[in-house]
Amino acid sequence: MDERAVALLRDADQIMILTHRRPDGDTVGCAAALCLGLRQLGKTAWVFPNEDITPLFSPYLEGLIDPMDASPGFIVAVDTASKGILTNRARRFGDNIDLVIDHHGTNEQYGWYNCVDPSCAACGELVYRILLKLGVHLTPEIALPLYVAVSTDTGCFAYSNTTAGTHRVAAALMEAGTDFAAVNKRHFRTKSLRRLRLEGLMTEHMHFYHDGVVSIIPISLAMMQGIGAGEEDAEDIAAFAGQVEGVRVSATIRQIQEGECKISLRTWPELCNAAAACALLGGGGHPAAAGCTVRGTLAEAEAAILSAIRCTMTPVVHGKR
Amino acid sequence: MDERAVALLRDADQIMILTHRRPDGDTVGCAAALCLGLRQLGKTAWVFPNEDITPLFSPYLEGLIDPMDASPGFIVAVDTASKGILTNRARRFGDNIDLVIDHHGTNEQYGWYNCVDPSCAACGELVYRILLKLGVHLTPEIALPLYVAVSTDTGCFAYSNTTAGTHRVAAALMEAGTDFAAVNKRHFRTKSLRRLRLEGLMTEHMHFYHDGVVSIIPISLAMMQGIGAGEEDAEDIAAFAGQVEGVRVSATIRQIQEGECKISLRTWPELCNAAAACALLGGGGHPAAAGCTVRGTLAEAEAAILSAIRCTMTPVVHGKR
Repeated sequence: MDERAVALLRDADQIMILTHRRPDGDTVGCAAALCLGLRQLGKTAWVFPNEDITPLFSPYLEGLIDPMDASPGFIVAVDTASKGILTNRARRFGDNIDLVIDHHGTNEQYGWYNCVDPSCAACGELVYRILLKLGVHLTPEIALPLYVAVSTDTGCFAYSNTTAGTHRVAAALMEAGTDFAAVNKRHFRTKSLRRLRLEGLMTEHMHFYHDGVVSIIPISLAMMQGIGAGEEDAEDIAAFAGQVEGVRVSATIRQIQEGECKISLRTWPELCNAAAACALLGGGGHPAAAGCTVRGTLAEAEAAILSAIRCTMTPVVHGKR
Repeated sequence: MDERAVALLRDADQIMILTHRRPDGDTVGCAAALCLGLRQLGKTAWVFPNEDITPLFSPYLEGLIDPMDASPGFIVAVDTASKGILTNRARRFGDNIDLVIDHHGTNEQYGWYNCVDPSCAACGELVYRILLKLGVHLTPEIALPLYVAVSTDTGCFAYSNTTAGTHRVAAALMEAGTDFAAVNKRHFRTKSLRRLRLEGLMTEHMHFYHDGVVSIIPISLAMMQGIGAGEEDAEDIAAFAGQVEGVRVSATIRQIQEGECKISLRTWPELCNAAAACALLGGGGHPAAAGCTVRGTLAEAEAAILSAIRCTMTPVVHGKR
């Protein structure tokens, strides 16, 4: 599988790399490393600009998005499970992608050739393998974005998707001389003051049910505005309530506008199937992480999701109180 | 170096293992893994009870502290830099330790033989190596405490002490079948509600100086008592203020009793030498992490450490405002 991707890249030139909307460290890191690696081989390669990119990740693409208006001879999409999650401006390339490099089991195989390995915790592991097979020398500049890809997609090796292979790739990237400590500090050990204030408010507004097994946090627009918090401060807040000792089912409810709330549900799936609970409210997702949007006030949304959780919880836990 | 330790352990029996006071994951994990490995080789081995142990780490020693009153034929101390940091009850063995296995560069070489490797991020890496050389088969039961040791001492591979070797050991431990996801959830993705409330209060009480480069958090006894927080909720709070974006020098001041405060200082050492700043107030430590105890109110302690920081900060930063 890798070999075919390697052969295609070896023969290609004028290579344009696409990332997915709301780009994360994995898609950005893969794009940067692949671009640098291909350039090292003497090819012309660039990353197509991603209009959603945040200041947290944009530095990794510095110097890589030119030539912006060149005509691509070969198009690669990285870490992008379907052409539907390309950015608006990149959608027009959706039907002409030569190579898809991805690690999502749900990948829709929309490329001319699709190199998809769901055994990789991060797409960065796969790009690392491909670059080595291409004969790219692992410079610190290439190792850095790969480390960003691998570490951010595994929560710095803490998430359950981490494998022995992930750690081995990390070891190789560190040996290549990447400044991993700066990456870790930036992505895992730094928070904005607004984020900390938001977390403080979330703690204050956390409601518990079922002897502390269920927690729900309603977040109003006023709460966000009061501390000047924006979307960049709210990243991954759905995981916040779930970290409390004893909590197995947690819902984060955000008021999107007057009369409309978005619910994110995180569960231990053996106790409560998140997708099933959210389906009761017209949403969906995975067994451990799902979401839905409901009409009404925050209090109404809280009552609705609590009722959906109760309908879906396994009797053992329900009766454990 | 390892070889001598391996030879000594191979010849020994009735082996008693000592851990350090205020035990962390590294000393507990090393003790548990070493004990289990030696038992696998048919030896009698046990861990000497540690009266300081917290519920977070005590499960790893379950079944390993017997026979409590047996007479040791060989004493090993793990992750313990000096005999002075043995627990009160273990102090009496301080002059009779046959083997010290440690990774602290400051180790005082107080054992009959000292196997000290400061290149290891965690002592667990060294114990892993020794167990393999002893011919111990890496069961999931042995891999688990070793993973606890390695992951906790590196902040789940995020601290700058992490090396490529650390990741390679982690890979091997994961392949041995340890339930690393449960360990990560327990140690890195779970907080008590009291801890979250304490963090909320710390955010509220955070003071900034020098354009946000310096942050100071005063924590009164009343603040702790008001939310029912104890020492178990205050672990590593000295690192809290340092995570705020832009902060390079952070002090956490805890009121110990009326009129007495303990200060923990964390710095980017190139901007402010923490040990030098704390030395001005009669304390000491390392360039990036130091502490001192001062008389007075929280406000007086804050003024004192701020003044000490200002005296110690490099002019570049001092003038950067």
